[in-house]
Amino acid sequence: MSGAAGGHLTVVGLGPGPDCWLTPEAADAVAAATDLVGYQPYVARCPERPGQARHASDNRVELDRARHALRLAAAGRQVAVVSGGDPGIFAMAAAVYEAIEVDGLPAGVEVRVLPGISAMQAAAARLGAPLGHDFCAISLSDNLKPWALVERRLTAAANGDFVVALYNPASKARPDRIHQAFALLRGLKAGTTPVAFARAVGRPDERIVVTTLGDADPGVADMATLVLIGSSETRWFSAGGRDVLLTPRSVAAARGDLAEAS
Amino acid sequence: MSGAAGGHLTVVGLGPGPDCWLTPEAADAVAAATDLVGYQPYVARCPERPGQARHASDNRVELDRARHALRLAAAGRQVAVVSGGDPGIFAMAAAVYEAIEVDGLPAGVEVRVLPGISAMQAAAARLGAPLGHDFCAISLSDNLKPWALVERRLTAAANGDFVVALYNPASKARPDRIHQAFALLRGLKAGTTPVAFARAVGRPDERIVVTTLGDADPGVADMATLVLIGSSETRWFSAGGRDVLLTPRSVAAARGDLAEAS
Repeated sequence: MSGAAGGHLTVVGLGPGPDCWLTPEAADAVAAATDLVGYQPYVARCPERPGQARHASDNRVELDRARHALRLAAAGRQVAVVSGGDPGIFAMAAAVYEAIEVDGLPAGVEVRVLPGISAMQAAAARLGAPLGHDFCAISLSDNLKPWALVERRLTAAANGDFVVALYNPASKARPDRIHQAFALLRGLKAGTTPVAFARAVGRPDERIVVTTLGDADPGVADMATLVLIGSSETRWFSAGGRDVLLTPRSVAAARGDLAEAS
Repeated sequence: MSGAAGGHLTVVGLGPGPDCWLTPEAADAVAAATDLVGYQPYVARCPERPGQARHASDNRVELDRARHALRLAAAGRQVAVVSGGDPGIFAMAAAVYEAIEVDGLPAGVEVRVLPGISAMQAAAARLGAPLGHDFCAISLSDNLKPWALVERRLTAAANGDFVVALYNPASKARPDRIHQAFALLRGLKAGTTPVAFARAVGRPDERIVVTTLGDADPGVADMATLVLIGSSETRWFSAGGRDVLLTPRSVAAARGDLAEAS
């Protein structure tokens, strides 16, 4: 089976939302596409262009979407699969390559992934420097992995004293997962550990809640929320009337030197 | 002490290098600055502008650089602290806030962090979708933390079966750290685990080495290299004559469903 020559499938990271965080590479790929494929809210973010086909789909059909995009590219179309954030981080790049692994890559089709700013980076920039040291990113979705694996990773993250960024913290189908995750972490980490719920950062409905692991109400998290949970070194301080969340580059033993040098 | 009105300190992520990955927000901040402050290679990336002062410094003086930038902002200057990648990930955002925590924020100065594409995202985009599932980012630098903490985190990352992105894998002062890290991980993970050394992705001297944990020569890593080490689910496959590195969204138990659906 040989496809029409020149088809492209480009997996495009749109970033968290605002144009100021959209890379020129991603903007160019969206503009050059004959077909946009993606979850409806991400397709809706792209300006409409005459002659450009828009294939918006529902959530949780990533593999169908990837196969649809591959069929279009095999027919010689220039396809942009648009994804929020970074398509390589809990997003469409993996789904596209899973489809290619199973079905094969249609002859003549070129595939590229264009990185984007991910939600944890937008949240970190707003909050201060919470990812200034070693961290983990964990998806709480258990659609495609057993919950026991999520628990194993949360436990390992606590044992390693990592900062933890939680993606997909809640869904209508499984609203209890974030509560279970917090219950587990409360047994392993100090109640004073800083926690931030950063919702839709960069978009009009941005909302940030800062609290502690002990006091947090995990129910404030929805699917647009990135949850950050500190390491033992993460702390809040006030600067210019604003709370800053900092995970310093140094661990406690080194902080004496820092103060001395000032 | 009250500073001159209107000083700004903006910590700017320049991304991995090429302009196509520089966000409009970051480009605008660099263009608007009266003063650029940063490690010399990052300042050198910014186009020269009449009237814009450039303060390039050596590596490993992050805190001095941050304080210098704060003094300039306190004097009313519009300062851009330029950082490679994402300033929030093992870069200048933490150093700036550490300086502010110790010294205080000069009155009237506004501080902002602008996110950028980080090295692991550029590497992942080139390689396929290695960060498609839960992952950790660990800096191997032990300038500011004890090596025992690095070992603790590498062990936790292996216990959690995370994909691992290693930043700062080698330095002239400590060329042995990456060898020690690999020795530790070889005792905890399968020798067949995929490994990639992704050097300077997006720059003219980009070089990617793909191998396995068992076969890897950690000596190929330098300070411009991002090292990716797979989870037990990460695998290579060939597509269109190119090796693709994939960490699927699903774990083994779910893969039967995936094949069935095809």
